[in-house]
Amino acid sequence: MIRRLAAEGLGTALLLISVIGSGIMGQTLADGNIAIALLANAIATGCMLYVIITTLGPISGAHFNPAVSLAFALRGELPWDEVPGYIIVQIVGGVLGVWATHLMFAQPVLQLSETMHRTGGAQWFSEFFATFGLLMVIFGGLRARPEAVPTLVALYITGAYWFTASTSFANPAVTVARGFSDTFAGINPAHIPAFIIAQLLAVGIGHWILRELFGRDQP
Amino acid sequence: MIRRLAAEGLGTALLLISVIGSGIMGQTLADGNIAIALLANAIATGCMLYVIITTLGPISGAHFNPAVSLAFALRGELPWDEVPGYIIVQIVGGVLGVWATHLMFAQPVLQLSETMHRTGGAQWFSEFFATFGLLMVIFGGLRARPEAVPTLVALYITGAYWFTASTSFANPAVTVARGFSDTFAGINPAHIPAFIIAQLLAVGIGHWILRELFGRDQP
Amino acid sequence: MIRRLAAEGLGTALLLISVIGSGIMGQTLADGNIAIALLANAIATGCMLYVIITTLGPISGAHFNPAVSLAFALRGELPWDEVPGYIIVQIVGGVLGVWATHLMFAQPVLQLSETMHRTGGAQWFSEFFATFGLLMVIFGGLRARPEAVPTLVALYITGAYWFTASTSFANPAVTVARGFSDTFAGINPAHIPAFIIAQLLAVGIGHWILRELFGRDQP
Amino acid sequence: MIRRLAAEGLGTALLLISVIGSGIMGQTLADGNIAIALLANAIATGCMLYVIITTLGPISGAHFNPAVSLAFALRGELPWDEVPGYIIVQIVGGVLGVWATHLMFAQPVLQLSETMHRTGGAQWFSEFFATFGLLMVIFGGLRARPEAVPTLVALYITGAYWFTASTSFANPAVTVARGFSDTFAGINPAHIPAFIIAQLLAVGIGHWILRELFGRDQP
Repeated sequence: MIRRLAAEGLGTALLLISVIGSGIMGQTLADGNIAIALLANAIATGCMLYVIITTLGPISGAHFNPAVSLAFALRGELPWDEVPGYIIVQIVGGVLGVWATHLMFAQPVLQLSETMHRTGGAQWFSEFFATFGLLMVIFGGLRARPEAVPTLVALYITGAYWFTASTSFANPAVTVARGFSDTFAGINPAHIPAFIIAQLLAVGIGHWILRELFGRDQP
Repeated sequence: MIRRLAAEGLGTALLLISVIGSGIMGQTLADGNIAIALLANAIATGCMLYVIITTLGPISGAHFNPAVSLAFALRGELPWDEVPGYIIVQIVGGVLGVWATHLMFAQPVLQLSETMHRTGGAQWFSEFFATFGLLMVIFGGLRARPEAVPTLVALYITGAYWFTASTSFANPAVTVARGFSDTFAGINPAHIPAFIIAQLLAVGIGHWILRELFGRDQP
Repeated sequence: MIRRLAAEGLGTALLLISVIGSGIMGQTLADGNIAIALLANAIATGCMLYVIITTLGPISGAHFNPAVSLAFALRGELPWDEVPGYIIVQIVGGVLGVWATHLMFAQPVLQLSETMHRTGGAQWFSEFFATFGLLMVIFGGLRARPEAVPTLVALYITGAYWFTASTSFANPAVTVARGFSDTFAGINPAHIPAFIIAQLLAVGIGHWILRELFGRDQP
Repeated sequence: MIRRLAAEGLGTALLLISVIGSGIMGQTLADGNIAIALLANAIATGCMLYVIITTLGPISGAHFNPAVSLAFALRGELPWDEVPGYIIVQIVGGVLGVWATHLMFAQPVLQLSETMHRTGGAQWFSEFFATFGLLMVIFGGLRARPEAVPTLVALYITGAYWFTASTSFANPAVTVARGFSDTFAGINPAHIPAFIIAQLLAVGIGHWILRELFGRDQP
């Protein structure tokens, strides 16, 4: 169990390092062209997702995301009493990843995001959709071709940076952790709860829709 | 049959979300450099194609494209009486996907494209070629390495954004749906019929050429 | 034999469409930033290479390149009397692909390149290296993991656009055909012979080096 | 043994050609937008890594990196008496690769980097992290899915260009060789020792952490 929690925490930390680090690097170098910064951000995050899901998947299942852990629990594929541990190490790992990134980029370790544009109905709908899509990709992929799941998640998120208005957080642990970084990928802490509500709504509604779509093979 | 139609509609909606959403995001951020917007558009669309073909393929075959459904029917691999249902849900799903994207990006839901440059012989020849290439990729891929089809289609379309003058719609349902968005990826409704004629011509001529090239294993 | 030659000609045409088309599109849209044009050029070419090698490989071997056909002949894996046919359809297919691209982009069909910078020792050494690397990738890949060859060639060329000064033509048929396009990817016809000599030198020297490196399993 | 050393030397030379060459090309064309240069640099390096690990892996193991060779030796999977030979050909191959790149780009062959920003605690911590991550990817990948290791390393490094402040050298031979190029990817020779110390620290600490995480199957 310790190894599984360590893998979840390490993986989520690495995920945040890729999100925050490439955001800082992109914005620093892109000379005001935000599209190039976001392209680097999306590609770097996708690369990391492939890597951590492939290498840590056999240990912990490679959720790195409370929404995903809850969805597995709803399907009866993760015991409910393991869910709190998973969620805690995901959030703690995410925040430690943000702090490690700040160290790598010679920034103050402790920050709170002052980014103001991540709020409003369009952003919340984006997060609902982004999370629903992520669950569809994971559970559809596990059904259709399990060995493709690392590629599926990596490509889905790389694309979703672009086709959702919120750049697809789709992950409560990532959302909380990004509140601790006043850089390109940050989110104002006041706007975090609404993002998480949208993500959790997608878990509930997605559970029902995806069960109809992909079949009820689970108890 | 309901699940198959639902998968076709959902997949086509997701495809349009990737096309329209990444187009809006790219154009908004690219600071006038259209090449960067198109690069993001192409990459995001390719990512989504890989995802929806892999996860929904086992349910419906993952056509998401009336030209592809017609081509399968011509080869005797899709019953003709299923073709109308497929085409209807593809078009409806595509339009719903466009509207969902407008909601995510806080745009008016109902729009008609006023894009004026998608017409003329060069554009039509581009669509003919783009559709022929897509069919070659699908049927050549099914023959050579079926498990590579999601990758083949995704990479083909990512490239075809660049090597055809029309950015490769290659899909009547996508063409109709893009008429409903006055954004980066839109097409003036008056220019839609000629695009669809070029695409259907490629289905007919492609059927004959590809049968010679890849062999007549079908009835 | 007709089907094999048709596949070689079609594939080489498609390869040139990807090279010339994405070059025109990139240069048109990139607003003077040549790096973005070259990035699109490299990605689109890599996408097409994956597609044509996967789908046409089972028919003709998917050489699309006289240097590759000669290398297979030197190894005793392509009968010498088939080499002239392969080379002719590769060159003819390549030129037809260039002309089709001009039609798609509403350009004069007949052009001769006036690009002046593709000459001199550094460019020739680049072509020698690029061709050697391509052969290493193909024959090393066939030995190590044959099903990875489409990916290997696609990624090698995508990268080689950037790490050689000539952007890696590495293909006599492509070199001749690019002489017929006065666009981004063109080459002045006067500079073609030296490119081809460098490429053929790499075939000869590469044959010897790679046989030592990868073993003499061939007659 | 000669073939193994030749493969290690050739592969490291090719790796440096991709790093230095795409750096020069990117900086030359990017019109001052360093983000685009770095994106090309990252993509070209990732492409080459996939290629050389796949094709040369069966011969030498495809380390191309003294840190990786040392890590294998620590695990008892490379005899210690082979380590010096591996390291020497990696460094020599890397330097020869740099010189070959200078020839391709018509630059003076002999250069020493005057790049001044690759120093300080944040850079060193970046190198420590980058090297730890690389080892995690390799040894986690060998345990989880050995055939994915070329993809894993390629994607990890492509991403790590962006999510570490140092752009992830993560390789003592590459670090030394990059000292010999006063171009985009160079490093001032005075700053090389600290980079290598950070990388070697990651080998030692990573050995211990990864053994706990992935299990002690080795002696």
